[in-house]
Amino acid sequence: MKPIRFNAFVMNTVGHQSPGLWTHPEDRTADYRHVEYWIELARLLEDALFDSMFIADVMGVYDVYGGGPDAALRHAVQIPTNDPLLVIPAMAAATRHLGFGVTFSLTYEHPYPFARRMSTLDHLTKGRVGWNIVTGYLESAAKNLGMPTQIGHDDRYDLADEYLEVLYKLWEHSWEEGAVLRDKKNGVFTDPSKVHPIRHQGRHFTVPGIHLCEPSPQRTPVLFQAGTSPRGAAFAGRHAECVFMSGPSKTIIKRYANDTRGALVNAGRRADDAIIYAQALVVTAATSAEAKEKFDAYLRHTNTDASLALLAGWTGIDFSRCDPDSTLEYVENDAGRTALASFTKSDPNRKWTVREAARFVALGGRGPVFVGSPTEVADEMESWVDETGIDGFNLAFAVIPGTFRDIARYIVPELKNRQRYRSAYTEGTLREKLFGRGAGLPENHIGRKTRIDWA
Amino acid sequence: MKPIRFNAFVMNTVGHQSPGLWTHPEDRTADYRHVEYWIELARLLEDALFDSMFIADVMGVYDVYGGGPDAALRHAVQIPTNDPLLVIPAMAAATRHLGFGVTFSLTYEHPYPFARRMSTLDHLTKGRVGWNIVTGYLESAAKNLGMPTQIGHDDRYDLADEYLEVLYKLWEHSWEEGAVLRDKKNGVFTDPSKVHPIRHQGRHFTVPGIHLCEPSPQRTPVLFQAGTSPRGAAFAGRHAECVFMSGPSKTIIKRYANDTRGALVNAGRRADDAIIYAQALVVTAATSAEAKEKFDAYLRHTNTDASLALLAGWTGIDFSRCDPDSTLEYVENDAGRTALASFTKSDPNRKWTVREAARFVALGGRGPVFVGSPTEVADEMESWVDETGIDGFNLAFAVIPGTFRDIARYIVPELKNRQRYRSAYTEGTLREKLFGRGAGLPENHIGRKTRIDWA
Repeated sequence: MKPIRFNAFVMNTVGHQSPGLWTHPEDRTADYRHVEYWIELARLLEDALFDSMFIADVMGVYDVYGGGPDAALRHAVQIPTNDPLLVIPAMAAATRHLGFGVTFSLTYEHPYPFARRMSTLDHLTKGRVGWNIVTGYLESAAKNLGMPTQIGHDDRYDLADEYLEVLYKLWEHSWEEGAVLRDKKNGVFTDPSKVHPIRHQGRHFTVPGIHLCEPSPQRTPVLFQAGTSPRGAAFAGRHAECVFMSGPSKTIIKRYANDTRGALVNAGRRADDAIIYAQALVVTAATSAEAKEKFDAYLRHTNTDASLALLAGWTGIDFSRCDPDSTLEYVENDAGRTALASFTKSDPNRKWTVREAARFVALGGRGPVFVGSPTEVADEMESWVDETGIDGFNLAFAVIPGTFRDIARYIVPELKNRQRYRSAYTEGTLREKLFGRGAGLPENHIGRKTRIDWA
Repeated sequence: MKPIRFNAFVMNTVGHQSPGLWTHPEDRTADYRHVEYWIELARLLEDALFDSMFIADVMGVYDVYGGGPDAALRHAVQIPTNDPLLVIPAMAAATRHLGFGVTFSLTYEHPYPFARRMSTLDHLTKGRVGWNIVTGYLESAAKNLGMPTQIGHDDRYDLADEYLEVLYKLWEHSWEEGAVLRDKKNGVFTDPSKVHPIRHQGRHFTVPGIHLCEPSPQRTPVLFQAGTSPRGAAFAGRHAECVFMSGPSKTIIKRYANDTRGALVNAGRRADDAIIYAQALVVTAATSAEAKEKFDAYLRHTNTDASLALLAGWTGIDFSRCDPDSTLEYVENDAGRTALASFTKSDPNRKWTVREAARFVALGGRGPVFVGSPTEVADEMESWVDETGIDGFNLAFAVIPGTFRDIARYIVPELKNRQRYRSAYTEGTLREKLFGRGAGLPENHIGRKTRIDWA
């Protein structure tokens, strides 16, 4: 039986996927702005042998609900929010094994400086960085970057493919192995004959020069992706090494997982060339009754306006204009598709009202909530992994550090007893830890096959 | 007598202002890619009560010399180079007082995400971050960002003024004091009535929304600037709180300092509203003879090609095509002006050959080198400060950690004995430490006076 993998799903903001829970007396997410908070959290996750801290990000505001940012501001629905990259270096210095999967939207920065940022993180973490490739979904982000409106969904993926092409050329091919000599005696730091300008000239980007950074331990960071639309799944099939998905039932997660495995094979890779994490929230304690009690206490700190502000941002629908008892319909618009599909597709015969959907996303976002004793939660986790073909969980939280401390205390030992959790980290980069092979991209990956055009 | 202030002038690269010195057996700058290197350096500087670590940056390659990057690569002339922002958070966690002045060129990123990055750094450092405002000077950087060529010198300053206007609106005016309540009991994190969209619509940028970050300890980071051109000095007069300058003689530094003080007054500020640091390299040891010996050893590790690659990048002149004994002429092109002015203006009657200029910049860049015993160096420093009107030094290095360790061991105690160096840090943000007043911009600063246009 394969081990079950854990990521922690967090964000550089107050709360995250459990809007309103910042009011819980135990929640400390309002300390997100302090470096000590991140160091402490990273150490907790590393002690519990998590694969990675997965850091979400949005560069905009959830301002669809009520036609403005008021509800999001009042309830701290992912606002205020700080830069996700900048918390990693301090955590890297305080840990040895934990990975860091950081979200960064490629529509908002040129690939040339972004390539340097990620190479720098890969150096500073000694090869423990991952990048969650996002193409942006909040209209407010596009507006504040001076774009008249968002780039269309499919166009975004075209741009993303070229963006990745530029990055692969810089990361994988600009500096050959052995280019850096550090030869003090002969006074040669880098052998210039082994460093190549990438000469990229594409539809969206022109990058003639060399990469500014020497090769980092992984060169290309471990690539995360979360697309479940047909175009998104195809993109993930080509590029992703870790895929993150959200859905409320095993049925829908199994379908997503199958789609992802199929997309990998369609792209000429192996079905298990990507690790799949499904979003989930764990509420646990020593006994079933205590866990239920904890869950009820969390529920009392949820907030309908906060939940609807989040759901409105995801779907583009202003639920302040809807009767709370009206039925949610399926919407085909970018991320809204994913959000609403979670409900409407999980059971085609079940209709969800606005009120029910708000309640569902109030704790742990669009994934399931596993409430129970260590045995009950571990049973549930095993059944999800074994029945859907996923590899593990992207664990959202109700409160920090409580949720992750409980997982470390109750669930990790239980899964270890069942031989369903690693007993120690292996040495090496994040990619080596995840796949047990080399530090760099495997040879069948598109990033290795991308070539500099010498013409 | 006012205390003499020290910054450390470094860069996230091998070497920096002493090209070739990475070959010295004691130099450890090739460890720039490791987070431990930065933490150790930050602790050394904090123990020596430095104001700040001033981190330079270029996003391009010194590829003028010989018409390509070969010399720069071979001798590690500021290439490879990593992102400057990302080393700060780990150092912030390991120190309590040291400031971090980071260089970032505003022509290469949109102000909206940049505002978030700097607010994040100000939060993570608890108000110890400064920003060295640069408008970009390497042609290769512009090319790799898909710009056909660099923006012209004066146009860059127009763009810079608008860029700062957007930042001031976001940092100073989008979130009122008291907007963030963190009121768990009443479930109000932020009072939405105290958060304002900035509605910026300018020639270069359109930013309608609110700042994504809650106010950080300093709001606006301490603003550094290095312009000595007329347009650059006027820009510094309006915006800068710390000014950094380079020149080989007291005569020229005195003129620059006077120009800067005049520009401050012209902009409606006080002449001492900015702190001025002049670049210098200190080579010291217990005795004069030992210091001279150390200096000679450093000189043996300089490299003419490396120095000329640096000088060619600064001036835009390919010195590989020049007779080494030909005379340098004054050049009016962007940063080249500053670079060559250092030589040709310092003594109008003195002519510099290419060879002499290369030798001059080989150690410590365009500033003076103070070689001697603690007494001799301290005498020299006092005379520079007292005769030119500067406030302190931006200290380049020959080797790391050697140069800064020597300053901590020999110069800091000597200056303390003379009552010309602080005996302890004061509490508070970087701005409070520097000016002994509030954490935020003073009321007479343009950033406080900039207003959101409510029309």
